[in-house]
Amino acid sequence: MRTIEEKFQKLGVENAPGQEVRQKTDKVALRGEPIPGRPVDFSHGDVDAHPPIPGSAELFMSGVARGGDQAYTEYRGTRSIREDVARKLSAFTGTAIDAEHEIIITPGTQGALFMAMGACMRAGDKVAILEPDYFANRKLVAFLEGEVVPIPMDYLNCREGSGIDLARLEQAFKDGVRLFLFSNPNNPTGVIYTAEELTAIAELANRYGVSVIADELYARQVFDNRPYTHLCALKNRPEQMVTIIGPSKTESLSGYRLGAAFGSWQIIDRMEKLQAIVSLRAPGYCQRVLKTWFDEPAGWMEARILAHRRIRDDLMARLTAAEGVSVRLTEAGSYLFVKMPPLDVSIGEFARALRLLAGVVVTPGTEFGPQFTDCFRINFSQDHAAAVDAIERTLQIMERYKK
Amino acid sequence: MRTIEEKFQKLGVENAPGQEVRQKTDKVALRGEPIPGRPVDFSHGDVDAHPPIPGSAELFMSGVARGGDQAYTEYRGTRSIREDVARKLSAFTGTAIDAEHEIIITPGTQGALFMAMGACMRAGDKVAILEPDYFANRKLVAFLEGEVVPIPMDYLNCREGSGIDLARLEQAFKDGVRLFLFSNPNNPTGVIYTAEELTAIAELANRYGVSVIADELYARQVFDNRPYTHLCALKNRPEQMVTIIGPSKTESLSGYRLGAAFGSWQIIDRMEKLQAIVSLRAPGYCQRVLKTWFDEPAGWMEARILAHRRIRDDLMARLTAAEGVSVRLTEAGSYLFVKMPPLDVSIGEFARALRLLAGVVVTPGTEFGPQFTDCFRINFSQDHAAAVDAIERTLQIMERYKK
Repeated sequence: MRTIEEKFQKLGVENAPGQEVRQKTDKVALRGEPIPGRPVDFSHGDVDAHPPIPGSAELFMSGVARGGDQAYTEYRGTRSIREDVARKLSAFTGTAIDAEHEIIITPGTQGALFMAMGACMRAGDKVAILEPDYFANRKLVAFLEGEVVPIPMDYLNCREGSGIDLARLEQAFKDGVRLFLFSNPNNPTGVIYTAEELTAIAELANRYGVSVIADELYARQVFDNRPYTHLCALKNRPEQMVTIIGPSKTESLSGYRLGAAFGSWQIIDRMEKLQAIVSLRAPGYCQRVLKTWFDEPAGWMEARILAHRRIRDDLMARLTAAEGVSVRLTEAGSYLFVKMPPLDVSIGEFARALRLLAGVVVTPGTEFGPQFTDCFRINFSQDHAAAVDAIERTLQIMERYKK
Repeated sequence: MRTIEEKFQKLGVENAPGQEVRQKTDKVALRGEPIPGRPVDFSHGDVDAHPPIPGSAELFMSGVARGGDQAYTEYRGTRSIREDVARKLSAFTGTAIDAEHEIIITPGTQGALFMAMGACMRAGDKVAILEPDYFANRKLVAFLEGEVVPIPMDYLNCREGSGIDLARLEQAFKDGVRLFLFSNPNNPTGVIYTAEELTAIAELANRYGVSVIADELYARQVFDNRPYTHLCALKNRPEQMVTIIGPSKTESLSGYRLGAAFGSWQIIDRMEKLQAIVSLRAPGYCQRVLKTWFDEPAGWMEARILAHRRIRDDLMARLTAAEGVSVRLTEAGSYLFVKMPPLDVSIGEFARALRLLAGVVVTPGTEFGPQFTDCFRINFSQDHAAAVDAIERTLQIMERYKK
């Protein structure tokens, strides 16, 4: 049996968004002169460039004014707020969510993800995780003392959809996997699963009795009128499943730590039991802010999506013009996953050099799967001009470190 | 191996504070007529009767005004806020806390407790837990798939201190316990550990290499000028230890979900790794509110403690006058743990009957240890007159259910 120290070695945070200040920088070999320019932190969105939904702070203050009633809510969240959110998420997904039994308000979508995982797996369980997929997924399995069964996703070469290897997924389910977690749109690539892929996933989950967690955090920000299918809306949806979503990304409400999970009541019940010992509840006064979610001022969401599509297009133009760079067009969300030509330093060293030479922070590809040693992820929810300039600096630094 | 459903059966929340609305009430045998009176929820403090520190909402809004910088902080919290809190907690405890390495800001003290436990134990580990002690402690061990080793605490019969059975504690450490968690002042009894008890605990922890988590959530609200010793301030303090504390109780800031843990840097490091996958960080804008913690207006804290001492004294007078009732005087915090004469219904049935007949919510003693079948806990941080009236109603209902 491993010690607690060994267990936590799998849970590094140095390269996680916002953690750059804690990086040890002594090992970086810097090449050439610094390139001046406005610093850009691509590891997460810039909520100053794309501010929160108007009126959110006022809703928070209305929570303060309610006093104890809003400070101490049910662990799964204030009933009236659950009812409002359930109604809006039902309309968004085309399902019917029971506010009493099938939804829980959580401290951020990260909180929803943690509790969903904790409610669906035990120490020793096998869990299917895509590569690439959100970096916390593997760490969650490590903390909960399960075993990751990686499933490849050929997102660069498939013509549409995610490129998930369904044969490998079925083999994993046959081999004893009890839980499957995936993000749609995929984080870090921004690809959307096709209805066919999702139907196949649901069919396999039901055939082998596998629970499914669908992370739809960025599902509202879909570009180019692409069709988006919710797994939970399928006729053959997995019997035991939960969908997680929240207003921290497109809506820029991250500072309030709000999220939601909805799905099978058995899982929601267990998530509430877990919330009771993890953090009690989503911050009480903040819960009020959910009133504005899915109820933004007319045109606000459309304008936000358009602004992000334009940034995406300008960045894609630069990236696809660069020799040796491969990248899939973002279909939804604010991520681009960039594959570089071979470098003669590690991706971690490149990321550090990029930060020190050009003031640009990216997330190393290895956070999303050990094989992505030549990739980095950016969140392009940034000031438009600053993002374009930062990508140009990034490509210049890349040239210096090419093999 | 148990299923996930079986695992979560140990994690009930029905009787937890704020969850009464989810109780199934069909099995209650109601005796006599309802007793009218203002409803009182003794399961947690009333932040309307004892409002938050003045200026806290304004500090929150200053966080909103800071924008992205405050929305996305380091996982362990904004550096300047950590420095401020470390300085204040160092002064409070008489220690020297390094803001860079030895402290983390958490989503509530519950968040601190969860992460401290997750950072100090593994599946299969034995953990020493006092009886009675905070109800989440046992549930945390169950979720983390460890084994509870109960340690008795003869709080009713000891002359001073907690009455912890140090011989049993040593035997548990000898038998392989690797982690010891306890609250000081004790929740639910309100007793304070003597310096001698704490010195003995530290000596045992160091002799057997046991990590210690000290929950000091209510340590600021000490009555009658009693001496209070911080375990972390002892010369022989445990080598691996962490103290958790927060502003949700005496300071009534629960609605902001803020807490802190400080201690051995190795544990704090692991806690940050865990926070990264549990909830990322304490709510960003809320972190600003910590500025007012330990920096309340002159006289505010003294007035708050005095108000609570007066409520305690009036409740104690009623309780000690009631035949067959045993209760230890609260030395710190807002809890009273009341032992009733034998009833002819279960404590859960009594609690439900009390709620339905008298509008009074208490927390059943069995939440704090399986043997406390004739006890209940109250948090007396309530409107003074309402609390006194509610205790009188409680004693009347008790009479109806006596054996």
